[in-house]
Amino acid sequence: MLKTLSSYFLRTLREDPADAEVASHKLLIRAGYIRRTAPGIYTWLPLGLRVLRNVEQVIREEMDRIGGQEVHFPALLPADPYKATHRWEEYGPTLFTLHDRKGGDYLLAPTHEEMFTLLVKDMFSSYKDLPSTLYQIQTKYRDEARPRAGLIRGREFVMKDAYSFDLAAEGLEASYMAQRGAYERIFRRLGLEYVIVSAMSGAMGGSHSEEFLHPSPIGEDTFVRSAGGYAANAEAVTTPVPDAVPFEGIAPAQIFDTPDSPTIDALVDLANRLHPREDRAWNAADTLKNVVVTLTHPDGEKELLVVGIPGDRDVDMKRLEASVAPAEVAMASPEDLATHPELVPGYIGPSVIGPNSPARVVDDEGNISGSVRYLLDPRIVEGTTWITGANAVDQHVFWLTKGRDFEADGTIEAAEVREGDPAPDGSGPLHLARGIEVGHIFALGDKYAKALGLTVLDENGKSQVVTMGSYGIGVSRVVAALAEAYHDDRGLSWPVNVAPFHVHVLATGKGDELFAAATHLSELLEERGLDVLYDDRRKVSAGVKFADAELIGLPIAVVVGRGLADGKVEIRVRTTGERIEVPVEEACDAVEKLYHDLQEKE
Amino acid sequence: MLKTLSSYFLRTLREDPADAEVASHKLLIRAGYIRRTAPGIYTWLPLGLRVLRNVEQVIREEMDRIGGQEVHFPALLPADPYKATHRWEEYGPTLFTLHDRKGGDYLLAPTHEEMFTLLVKDMFSSYKDLPSTLYQIQTKYRDEARPRAGLIRGREFVMKDAYSFDLAAEGLEASYMAQRGAYERIFRRLGLEYVIVSAMSGAMGGSHSEEFLHPSPIGEDTFVRSAGGYAANAEAVTTPVPDAVPFEGIAPAQIFDTPDSPTIDALVDLANRLHPREDRAWNAADTLKNVVVTLTHPDGEKELLVVGIPGDRDVDMKRLEASVAPAEVAMASPEDLATHPELVPGYIGPSVIGPNSPARVVDDEGNISGSVRYLLDPRIVEGTTWITGANAVDQHVFWLTKGRDFEADGTIEAAEVREGDPAPDGSGPLHLARGIEVGHIFALGDKYAKALGLTVLDENGKSQVVTMGSYGIGVSRVVAALAEAYHDDRGLSWPVNVAPFHVHVLATGKGDELFAAATHLSELLEERGLDVLYDDRRKVSAGVKFADAELIGLPIAVVVGRGLADGKVEIRVRTTGERIEVPVEEACDAVEKLYHDLQEKE
Repeated sequence: MLKTLSSYFLRTLREDPADAEVASHKLLIRAGYIRRTAPGIYTWLPLGLRVLRNVEQVIREEMDRIGGQEVHFPALLPADPYKATHRWEEYGPTLFTLHDRKGGDYLLAPTHEEMFTLLVKDMFSSYKDLPSTLYQIQTKYRDEARPRAGLIRGREFVMKDAYSFDLAAEGLEASYMAQRGAYERIFRRLGLEYVIVSAMSGAMGGSHSEEFLHPSPIGEDTFVRSAGGYAANAEAVTTPVPDAVPFEGIAPAQIFDTPDSPTIDALVDLANRLHPREDRAWNAADTLKNVVVTLTHPDGEKELLVVGIPGDRDVDMKRLEASVAPAEVAMASPEDLATHPELVPGYIGPSVIGPNSPARVVDDEGNISGSVRYLLDPRIVEGTTWITGANAVDQHVFWLTKGRDFEADGTIEAAEVREGDPAPDGSGPLHLARGIEVGHIFALGDKYAKALGLTVLDENGKSQVVTMGSYGIGVSRVVAALAEAYHDDRGLSWPVNVAPFHVHVLATGKGDELFAAATHLSELLEERGLDVLYDDRRKVSAGVKFADAELIGLPIAVVVGRGLADGKVEIRVRTTGERIEVPVEEACDAVEKLYHDLQEKE
Repeated sequence: MLKTLSSYFLRTLREDPADAEVASHKLLIRAGYIRRTAPGIYTWLPLGLRVLRNVEQVIREEMDRIGGQEVHFPALLPADPYKATHRWEEYGPTLFTLHDRKGGDYLLAPTHEEMFTLLVKDMFSSYKDLPSTLYQIQTKYRDEARPRAGLIRGREFVMKDAYSFDLAAEGLEASYMAQRGAYERIFRRLGLEYVIVSAMSGAMGGSHSEEFLHPSPIGEDTFVRSAGGYAANAEAVTTPVPDAVPFEGIAPAQIFDTPDSPTIDALVDLANRLHPREDRAWNAADTLKNVVVTLTHPDGEKELLVVGIPGDRDVDMKRLEASVAPAEVAMASPEDLATHPELVPGYIGPSVIGPNSPARVVDDEGNISGSVRYLLDPRIVEGTTWITGANAVDQHVFWLTKGRDFEADGTIEAAEVREGDPAPDGSGPLHLARGIEVGHIFALGDKYAKALGLTVLDENGKSQVVTMGSYGIGVSRVVAALAEAYHDDRGLSWPVNVAPFHVHVLATGKGDELFAAATHLSELLEERGLDVLYDDRRKVSAGVKFADAELIGLPIAVVVGRGLADGKVEIRVRTTGERIEVPVEEACDAVEKLYHDLQEKE
């Protein structure tokens, strides 16, 4: 049945929705693709659902091509498997949990590792059953603290999650690479630019993982690349550790009064005025900033932690979070600080924290109490010397030297990565960019199989733990990423492979004959297998129709208007703005050719 | 990619699962279509998902054919709209509810009337926008007290729910009839026998509704039909009200001792022995049984209620439930009865209940207190005379006559409907059967539109409340109903339109040539557009392969076995058991023809 705008369930909006900040969110709502139902929870209107289905279909085809088999799990799951792997606790408040009428613990699944593991355990018993790759395209739930940007970070969203099951590491590697290849084909077919970056595995666990990021200024992820080929999510960047420096010749540590130095800049300024060094000027990188944060562990326990980083850098909360996961992290509040009076805000120095603290007690089992744990940026190696807090207001210590004057409990990746920092693999300086995470592949290894007892008998009849991978694509997020990538100031502009319809036929004019011709042309185009949206509205001006067409963003528009008197219609290409006039009887051929041209270009 | 059993994610089971009672549940699990995840919550394995998708596709095509437009709502919804319509309370414990991290009330939607109403309110403002029909195929949640029979009554299930929006009653009627017609086509195409019966609207509200029942002995619904064309769910059957009887000539009410009469039979026996009537013998239908139940209203308030029915009938709890919805009903416990000491268990009579009770108080606002509410079966009309309890142990009253000796607070449909009862429309005696509810269509009217303020401006610029219908199909339940309808003692036997694959190719024998021939034949069949499942397992006996094929139940099997030496293969038809041997080069033609023949028959 021809889809006509006079009856299609679509109302475009002239105004951006008040809560929308990014283009995809604004345009998907204004153009009638989605509607907000609750924070981070959206309804798919007919246009949006068609795009979603197109994206799903491409994913499904590529999963099937590598031998993936589609199943479908419930979203509502019993808690026990997630308790067995501790994710019930580790997910914290991000997990939607509920009770059934009998009081049983249930959850809305954020991802399904546990269930796939148990299913395979239920079905398989021999190495001959392996390898196997299963997947689903399914609705997932995460109670994000800050749902944002429409479909970019939702609380209910559609995900493709696949899982591979292999007997050994080589098998996992092959399955992982097959998924990686499928992802490359998927994003190419969808027309979505991507970068593959090394990533942190986070709550998922496992040995290594990579993210597929769509480069975009509105992306939530910062990633880095070097000219030499290094690429990683900023969270996964490791800091090259400098060589240790000999202590000889370093001045002894000395405390100075440093009034009116509330900032690093002021402190450096004062240092250069009152206590200049001989070789060069002090700079911010010579200061050691001790930042106090609170960790909340999955069991609910809170812990203070001091992170020491060079004063020319800020703490990157996402890198810090990734380093301490599954604990949640927050800046320490004045109340938190008050529990450790030795911490003088603004003047915290090593001598009262970590292993340097005289209050530290280590019991027979190695449990530490009395002093706050202290972790250092990896740049702070033996022999590096610092200006840092002297644990009293308006006092700093100079020439405090790591390994000579203070120690720490270890290192932590918490400092921001900056443009020009060296790549950890020596492949050159790093360039920073932002991206939207559209896919994430994990070599899980045996974490879930071990926790849930998934073993098979190998060729020698010996029980072996199965090794797993898990592979996700944020399907609804991909729709948003495509909208980010394909729009201009007039509206959306879909690639033909995902467009909700291929052709927008506009009847712009008056008279039954004109509408009859437009209807007929629409039907002919549909007969050729093209999906047509036909603007047959009688009392709507040509201007409104054009604006709606550009907002909705179908790849090709056919205007049946004034030219019809001369037997002509106009064809418009949404991406290029190109307009060509063709005789009405050649319109179908021209549109079809254009469609194939556009498809080839993608 | 050819689907081969050596790698297909499928393990058949020889044993019925312990918790399965009905054939569809047993076979869908044994044949590897679904797996239980939690009570009433199932995982779709590859075979099952294919059947589900086939069913969905038929439904989708027929919804589209009548102009339905597909959208997709979240399953996780904010509570407010459901509070506005009171369904938040009315659904009671059947509703899965939860809090998000901010403490907001959410629910897992059991059905989406509220959300569709609000969406249309958001999009439409004028009568010109109507009529409109929207639908979705979506996962729903109901925390059933007794999930049972696998997919028949689940707690997470797939539903197609459609909603129509019209300006006036005639429009609703047309939309309703369009859905009714679409349902008939859907169930015909699916090959699922159905009966359309009048139904109760229950918690859904609305003026009238009909159910599509698949007749089946394992069905949870009892329905009735008369030769004259009446058909209704037993819950919806109304009892024909007999004419009132004149009081003249009826003996005065008289209390007798009735020792040792704990049952209706014993009471009737005693009556005939000690107090015989002149015209005929007493029988059970002359006794009036007063049954005490407790109602729990949506606001949590409990109420005792006495239901009076002729002693030859039992209370049908489902009919009673339907009559008192949205209140929940249960038999009164001894503790409940103790709150009203005038109720003597086994001897309850009208004089202490309802309007007959001297304890009854009616205040100025018409509120009743003091006595228990009393409702009668509609057969108990003025002038009917009864043997009933005398409110003392071992005592009954005879000749107690309605309208002369006692009154009630009204009537209630609570008595069981019996084979041979008269149809309410006079179309003859009723026949009872059981059915699985696979569809339910509701003329909702303005219940939701009023509660949520869905109005449009009519032709005269006047605001009008929109009138709605809602139309559901239990998609996953349909899969189970089909399995009930199409199986035998060897396994499933799918109609071609829903079968997960069309053809099962079995290589039964040894030697690479035989397997090569079977592979080739499978590929040729796929090239003709048939879906093939190929049993290529090398170390599995022919017997096991045949048993698996019959268990899985694809419509056509092709056996590449011993006959191949003579250039022959065997084709088997699952439904009829028919076997034909054909030359291998004619196999594709023969299978294709058979496929089309089977399709036409459906």
